[in-house]
Amino acid sequence: LTATRWEVGCQLDFEVTEPASMALLVAAARRPGLQVQDGLAVTVDGVGHGSVPIVDDRDDGQRTHLLELPVGAVSITYDAQVTRSTTAPEPRGEVPIAADPAEQLGYLRPSRYCPSDRIGGWAQREFGEPVPPQDVGGQAELARAVTSWVFERTDYVLGSSGGTDSAIDTLLTSQGVCRDFAHLVITICRALDLPARFASVYAPGLMPMDFHAVAEVCIGGQWYVHDATALAPRSALTRIATGRDAADTAFVTVYRGRAELTGANVLAVTDQVLPSDALEVAVQLA
Amino acid sequence: LTATRWEVGCQLDFEVTEPASMALLVAAARRPGLQVQDGLAVTVDGVGHGSVPIVDDRDDGQRTHLLELPVGAVSITYDAQVTRSTTAPEPRGEVPIAADPAEQLGYLRPSRYCPSDRIGGWAQREFGEPVPPQDVGGQAELARAVTSWVFERTDYVLGSSGGTDSAIDTLLTSQGVCRDFAHLVITICRALDLPARFASVYAPGLMPMDFHAVAEVCIGGQWYVHDATALAPRSALTRIATGRDAADTAFVTVYRGRAELTGANVLAVTDQVLPSDALEVAVQLA
Amino acid sequence: LTATRWEVGCQLDFEVTEPASMALLVAAARRPGLQVQDGLAVTVDGVGHGSVPIVDDRDDGQRTHLLELPVGAVSITYDAQVTRSTTAPEPRGEVPIAADPAEQLGYLRPSRYCPSDRIGGWAQREFGEPVPPQDVGGQAELARAVTSWVFERTDYVLGSSGGTDSAIDTLLTSQGVCRDFAHLVITICRALDLPARFASVYAPGLMPMDFHAVAEVCIGGQWYVHDATALAPRSALTRIATGRDAADTAFVTVYRGRAELTGANVLAVTDQVLPSDALEVAVQLA
Amino acid sequence: LTATRWEVGCQLDFEVTEPASMALLVAAARRPGLQVQDGLAVTVDGVGHGSVPIVDDRDDGQRTHLLELPVGAVSITYDAQVTRSTTAPEPRGEVPIAADPAEQLGYLRPSRYCPSDRIGGWAQREFGEPVPPQDVGGQAELARAVTSWVFERTDYVLGSSGGTDSAIDTLLTSQGVCRDFAHLVITICRALDLPARFASVYAPGLMPMDFHAVAEVCIGGQWYVHDATALAPRSALTRIATGRDAADTAFVTVYRGRAELTGANVLAVTDQVLPSDALEVAVQLA
Repeated sequence: LTATRWEVGCQLDFEVTEPASMALLVAAARRPGLQVQDGLAVTVDGVGHGSVPIVDDRDDGQRTHLLELPVGAVSITYDAQVTRSTTAPEPRGEVPIAADPAEQLGYLRPSRYCPSDRIGGWAQREFGEPVPPQDVGGQAELARAVTSWVFERTDYVLGSSGGTDSAIDTLLTSQGVCRDFAHLVITICRALDLPARFASVYAPGLMPMDFHAVAEVCIGGQWYVHDATALAPRSALTRIATGRDAADTAFVTVYRGRAELTGANVLAVTDQVLPSDALEVAVQLA
Repeated sequence: LTATRWEVGCQLDFEVTEPASMALLVAAARRPGLQVQDGLAVTVDGVGHGSVPIVDDRDDGQRTHLLELPVGAVSITYDAQVTRSTTAPEPRGEVPIAADPAEQLGYLRPSRYCPSDRIGGWAQREFGEPVPPQDVGGQAELARAVTSWVFERTDYVLGSSGGTDSAIDTLLTSQGVCRDFAHLVITICRALDLPARFASVYAPGLMPMDFHAVAEVCIGGQWYVHDATALAPRSALTRIATGRDAADTAFVTVYRGRAELTGANVLAVTDQVLPSDALEVAVQLA
Repeated sequence: LTATRWEVGCQLDFEVTEPASMALLVAAARRPGLQVQDGLAVTVDGVGHGSVPIVDDRDDGQRTHLLELPVGAVSITYDAQVTRSTTAPEPRGEVPIAADPAEQLGYLRPSRYCPSDRIGGWAQREFGEPVPPQDVGGQAELARAVTSWVFERTDYVLGSSGGTDSAIDTLLTSQGVCRDFAHLVITICRALDLPARFASVYAPGLMPMDFHAVAEVCIGGQWYVHDATALAPRSALTRIATGRDAADTAFVTVYRGRAELTGANVLAVTDQVLPSDALEVAVQLA
Repeated sequence: LTATRWEVGCQLDFEVTEPASMALLVAAARRPGLQVQDGLAVTVDGVGHGSVPIVDDRDDGQRTHLLELPVGAVSITYDAQVTRSTTAPEPRGEVPIAADPAEQLGYLRPSRYCPSDRIGGWAQREFGEPVPPQDVGGQAELARAVTSWVFERTDYVLGSSGGTDSAIDTLLTSQGVCRDFAHLVITICRALDLPARFASVYAPGLMPMDFHAVAEVCIGGQWYVHDATALAPRSALTRIATGRDAADTAFVTVYRGRAELTGANVLAVTDQVLPSDALEVAVQLA
């Protein structure tokens, strides 16, 4: 019996200038086979702020914290111990994550930052005709070709993109950060009839440490991680949130009032030996 | 005891030139208080095609039909009898449709055709600051102001928009069809911190008859119909699908192969006396 | 001594519903070595409408007709005989069209339908680094590579694009008509530091006959025609208007009042033997 | 006899990492009634670099400097004395700047950052029908209404926009810098059939000092300055460059090689008494 452990978390500082309602998507997701022990602490002007409701909003274990924050200097600390006990040495193959047909359909549709309905012609000229779902090997190969293309054609440049940029901007400028790489992989995959979605994750080994984002592509009814940045070992990732694109997984959403993020620190370590995994190996993420 | 009845349905004809996988979102949704009896028939070159699986993909009763179609002239007929038995004369107030906080949050986010993250400045200059959720009356007034603005500022022009146009195109051209009116209402509402979503519906009384689309805005935790086209009585609508925007509710999605829609007829009648309801009255939809 | 002759022209019908001011850009351009004899006739409800001022608005011989039209059924007929007398058999090499540095600079800048500032990263990944101006052979090769790429990657589909689409839409959908092909060639060239501009032309041999549009790329200080549609022999083209993109060369601009185009016929014949010219041969246009 | 004097200029520092071809648009424009005495000096790694050709590329006196720069630390200093001798006290009325019809037509067309063809519906709903050209008073009033609207609805926020943003972004975000304010005024005016163009200027009194940009609107065949930022006295402006939008007037264009701007200082002083001029007074600019 093998156990893998992660310690993940973050500290987020805000200047709240009007009483604010905030949703945080920073908690490690509860997943089959994972034990999560965690806590979230809030201080306002240095004083503890009491409890925070957790909304378990999704069947897949994704958890949102809702906060009502008064005016002041707010500091939020999240810390989690995640353990996976396995009886087999394979990192993730033992817990296949099946996608049902309706779920897959939802991830074929265009979304805010992944406007796959606008790039169909280009995608099919660049990558060829879609591969039928029963050809699992062909679909896997096509997804890897997309990820390799994005990896080779895109520069990782901090600050090169803005919050309203879509995958089309990334395609045209050949620059972006992790969310942009993920959006571009997802958008091309959907345009080729491959269901694809966005996952925000903690990424042990990422340099510099920060929240990370990857694409997941559905092949043969199962989701595989594709990270065209190749900046973090995929088998060491642990999931925070899943959605159509970054609109679904923003780690902070202020939906009332006014709060400005003034500082952020992210922690993600694991006792796994971090592999230098090759881009073309498919990995599944809990 | 009063019963309201609808007969709704559609006939869709396709020329299938490569074996195609298709998802249909045309079935009347199952909702609390509604009885739905329906059937879907498929013929290929005039011959019956056997059974079609229904995927009940959503807790709210939305149903997708998945079809595997061979090459040929395909005709699909959907027909439903919908009945609502009520003990009180009010059209819908007795079955409030509550939205939980996480659901509301999801409908504050930008989506493919409702890029609310791009119009925040304009929306707040045009309609004023967002109203806090506890001020239910103020939020209802704000939502009505948005819908009235879209009604007054937008021309309903068949063929004036394309499938990849977003609410920004509608805002800038002041033209559109029902999906565009709904997208613009939704986009402005989200930019003002009002959760808003898209519903495709059968609409008795619509002229000319077709599939219809409306916005729903969440006020005080409940969803109200806003139809800035004012082309159909809102209390007579019956729901097909609900989502962030038209990407979620396309009545036909061909996700493999090739099929061209060559004809469509929609039917929607009710035994209700169709009211000529005013734009500013809030209506809830089953 | 050889003479080449063209007969070109058009008939345009309008329903004018409010007195309208209109600019027409349909006259054959006056160019060194060309003789142009032409005339424009206007009838309103079948009756001749009097004279129309011609504005010779450009040093390069481009001519705009300005019309003040009353309400009614307006028919405009333009007809021109164009002759080029040459002492050498080469079609155009004897009248080089030099571009001065400032003119070239203007055609490196992004324009409405050629947003070259948005595709720099993609263009350099697809076609390599820009070639310095002194390497005339290298620049010519690069321009031909761009045109071949657009030819191979884009489908000519009538009705596939709209009047507000830019070259980015053409790149992403892989579809368009002649103006879209020209816009895409121009946009990519500018992104690679090759001055490029748009020319509307009469095109003998075009099937079906219509106004046509091509790109011109400046290599070694001279302008060469690039037509990625390959639908008309380039050496038979005769110029109407030149500009940054289709915004500069619209054959009809209604800048006051209301007039709807109800019919258009274009004529373009030449006594040249129409070559089936290869895409990769550089051609200069008078 | 009265004389008004300006001293204007700039210092621009570059790190040139590959031999670069550069066009500078910083020289004060030569205009009727103005005397300009100026010079441009270039040093490379602290050593004088020799002469720089000036290209008088436009009939209206606009002047571009073309530079071929070697690798190194490049410093460029431009300095100009501009004098206007007048026999009448009025600041500019005595030298009307007439626009011919063809020039006006060119400035009705959409351009890269002023996509007036996309906002026609919105503009006419917000500002009413276009006013015919013979109603000079009505056109002037309409142009002032546009400028006032942009002034009241837009926040001047340094860093809020990027180089590829268009007037539509400014309209939707309600934020921008001087080029964005000018683009939005121009775009709306064109959508209302008012010819409008972009002018880069030296602006004595601007705080903080920088290059400035304004719109010019053509009313009754003459160009009037509209500055929706209201940040500098309009009668003290002196013109650098004129064009359709910022694409035409970029103060630095690197069209070959690689050079990064590392510092910029702008100087603009005048012996005029700087008026605190009201937004609604029309001003003409030399």
